[in-house]
Amino acid sequence: MSHYTYNPINSSIVDELKSIVGAKFVIFGEPEKIEPYSHDEIAEKHYAHMPEAVVKPRTAEEISKIMKLANRENVPVTPRGAGSGLSGGAVPLHGGISLSLERMNEILEIDKENLVVVVEPGVVTNEINDKLKADGLFFAGYPMSVESCFVGGNVAENAGGGRAVKYGVTERYIIGLEVVTPQGDIIHLGGKLSKNVVGYDFIKLMVGSEGTLGIFTKIYIKLLPLPTEKIDLLVMFKDVESAIRIVPTIMTMGHIIPTSIEFMDKLSFQTSYKYLNEHLPHEDAGAMLLIEIDGNNIEQLEKEYETIGELCLQNDAIDVFVADNTTTQERVWKVRRNIAEAFKVYSPVQSLEDIVVPVASIPKILPEIEKLADKYDVVIPCYGHAGDGNLHATIVKKPEMSIEKWNELLPTILHDLYEKTVACGGTISGEHGIGHKRKEFIGQALEPATIELMRRVKLAFDPKNILNPGKIFNID
Amino acid sequence: MSHYTYNPINSSIVDELKSIVGAKFVIFGEPEKIEPYSHDEIAEKHYAHMPEAVVKPRTAEEISKIMKLANRENVPVTPRGAGSGLSGGAVPLHGGISLSLERMNEILEIDKENLVVVVEPGVVTNEINDKLKADGLFFAGYPMSVESCFVGGNVAENAGGGRAVKYGVTERYIIGLEVVTPQGDIIHLGGKLSKNVVGYDFIKLMVGSEGTLGIFTKIYIKLLPLPTEKIDLLVMFKDVESAIRIVPTIMTMGHIIPTSIEFMDKLSFQTSYKYLNEHLPHEDAGAMLLIEIDGNNIEQLEKEYETIGELCLQNDAIDVFVADNTTTQERVWKVRRNIAEAFKVYSPVQSLEDIVVPVASIPKILPEIEKLADKYDVVIPCYGHAGDGNLHATIVKKPEMSIEKWNELLPTILHDLYEKTVACGGTISGEHGIGHKRKEFIGQALEPATIELMRRVKLAFDPKNILNPGKIFNID
Repeated sequence: MSHYTYNPINSSIVDELKSIVGAKFVIFGEPEKIEPYSHDEIAEKHYAHMPEAVVKPRTAEEISKIMKLANRENVPVTPRGAGSGLSGGAVPLHGGISLSLERMNEILEIDKENLVVVVEPGVVTNEINDKLKADGLFFAGYPMSVESCFVGGNVAENAGGGRAVKYGVTERYIIGLEVVTPQGDIIHLGGKLSKNVVGYDFIKLMVGSEGTLGIFTKIYIKLLPLPTEKIDLLVMFKDVESAIRIVPTIMTMGHIIPTSIEFMDKLSFQTSYKYLNEHLPHEDAGAMLLIEIDGNNIEQLEKEYETIGELCLQNDAIDVFVADNTTTQERVWKVRRNIAEAFKVYSPVQSLEDIVVPVASIPKILPEIEKLADKYDVVIPCYGHAGDGNLHATIVKKPEMSIEKWNELLPTILHDLYEKTVACGGTISGEHGIGHKRKEFIGQALEPATIELMRRVKLAFDPKNILNPGKIFNID
Repeated sequence: MSHYTYNPINSSIVDELKSIVGAKFVIFGEPEKIEPYSHDEIAEKHYAHMPEAVVKPRTAEEISKIMKLANRENVPVTPRGAGSGLSGGAVPLHGGISLSLERMNEILEIDKENLVVVVEPGVVTNEINDKLKADGLFFAGYPMSVESCFVGGNVAENAGGGRAVKYGVTERYIIGLEVVTPQGDIIHLGGKLSKNVVGYDFIKLMVGSEGTLGIFTKIYIKLLPLPTEKIDLLVMFKDVESAIRIVPTIMTMGHIIPTSIEFMDKLSFQTSYKYLNEHLPHEDAGAMLLIEIDGNNIEQLEKEYETIGELCLQNDAIDVFVADNTTTQERVWKVRRNIAEAFKVYSPVQSLEDIVVPVASIPKILPEIEKLADKYDVVIPCYGHAGDGNLHATIVKKPEMSIEKWNELLPTILHDLYEKTVACGGTISGEHGIGHKRKEFIGQALEPATIELMRRVKLAFDPKNILNPGKIFNID
């Protein structure tokens, strides 16, 4: 796997770790307490790996000391947020230290004059927006796991989510970072600045680096004024083609950038409706879009939803439902949000994917995915963020397939899925990341020269390959 | 300066270059034809340096061959766009090859379904938006030199400009790149994708790398629907503090993100009005803001400008002028646009700076800058992009100061200016870049460990330090 070999954690290292963070913040030799730190939200057990020790620092200085110790003793360190990831980013693949940031959970400053919030990495993302609401501000990053994930993990994975059509993904809002480097230096990048071209953009390099280039200890987030109004439209189309064709039309003809444009194929919404025991309004619909618009002026929004509705109906929509109050909005989003859960009831063995293609290629990739499902006798519902071309093509084991057969087939199905995706101008992950789940497939998405440069950049930051080794690509 | 030494270009290298790009696209031994490639838009002569040869490739394959030749022969290569930069990025500091991208000037594809334009690096930025207008689309990057700069240069410098408050800077829109690496590989990053978390974000690392990490040969730009309406407000305040205080108020109380919030101090607008021979409406004004809002609905915009106007008048504005047609808009922008020109008439010897501070710190930095002007007996007008805290604090030689004295003083003035800026939480360049103009000052903005990591990243891409050497930081 790697020609880097690591030393086991011995009692003198444990003592030193205890002297750095305090004895009660080091877990060692207690497997049942360590186990929760061995995995993230990937369901499959074989992606898990136990760390030898769990360490819970409180400050950047402590983390700096831990990294210097790890370099000296040749012990791997894997940073960990809430463990809500979906690619194994926080799994300590080579053992060593699981560095949990759970104690670094303070919102340090809300700067209303500069529209910036400064937070520690262990703050739950939703908490930030809860705190900001009273000031009429918000952080526009919005992963679907917003109620449990840590903001540090959002930055490490460059989390996407449902609002990216209008607001972009996490990286757009990260304007400053305090980082402990793999070698244990504490560096400060950016700050409360909207523009900054001094040297290479290390902030953006850190964002999405999956915990392999540095550990974030302070995060500066740019805020936006909180929109006061929103309206949702649930639109049924006769087929996928017409549903997708409307996406650029809304923007070019309608001059409107929706907050969200969520897509559900027939299999997805049918399964969700069934699970929710709700009546499906149009049996004959072939695809659905859930479109959300937001703003500060209700008359303006009403004009916009009328424009969108008209454009949809002129372009083969079967029906348009408007949800302009919390109750109806909750009802339409419920269908979208329960798809994953609905398929878990059908069969808990799944591989949750997040391929991304150019928006206009969605109608091209979907029949290919259907063919794959037929070929390998699995179920692959497609739903997700149509406005970004980001599809949760979830491969689901049929109840009648044996688990041995599934384990044998899955790598081939993933290979084929990624091949079709790349052939459509797409790539293998739009928001979950590579981690070790997709590491063996990265060569399908990136050229050898690019991967070689990424390896060199990793070793420029981390010559001993100590920080989160075994992720994204193989080093040797 | 650097322990890297380079070989001169001999006649056999010239022959090989000619065989790669064609004889008429290599200039060698003709100093008067080479001279235009020795400088950018920095006025001072001593930042210029002559290349030994100018080479004008047409394709990525030709550039790949040139880079392989340069590595083999140990000859430096400096890529060049329109030469409209302001930090010396395109100056071939160590001689060698000036690689001009002027022939790679095609708009390759306007993809209206995916809202993406694919261009070559030598396209003039304005041309892109001219072409897109008919389709109701636009590229929101908007440097002030938009009528002459090349888009490749915008990407290399991460150009900012006047619309960044609402639309961000160049990097937000770059979603794919074809790049020739310093070692001559042609790699493909991203594409027509709105989300992409596969490996490190090399696209964003390339953006703003000032031509030191790669040469862009294809650029994928994300487009937005073109707003149909705009309105400008010229607002006079009694002092700087009240002008700046209104900036976050517009966003939080007014829920409005203007396209531009341009700031002019008293010295700037007085000099500009005088130069334009226009009557200054309020002699007693201490600062001016030029606020632009855009959108697609004129009633909505009218509401917004009324809100902004009211907020300004409640917060110590002396007067608000509204410009809602092209003629009056042209008139108010004229004042802002002619500041640089007006000071050139006063004294052509200047150092155009682009410091950036947190917006709320503008009232703190301005008195410090006034003190510097007094101390060194120079003039320092401040104007620029207040919404981003990005100020063109231009140091202007008084006509009575000798040029020797100026040359002797300038490094000290810059040092002090940057020191005050950094002390306010700011940094030394918001849009122009470091190049070699600010290289000796980068240690004031970045920590030694950060600079060391940047050096290592540079050498990871370019082990022989062949591509645009001598820029951003010193290598040894």
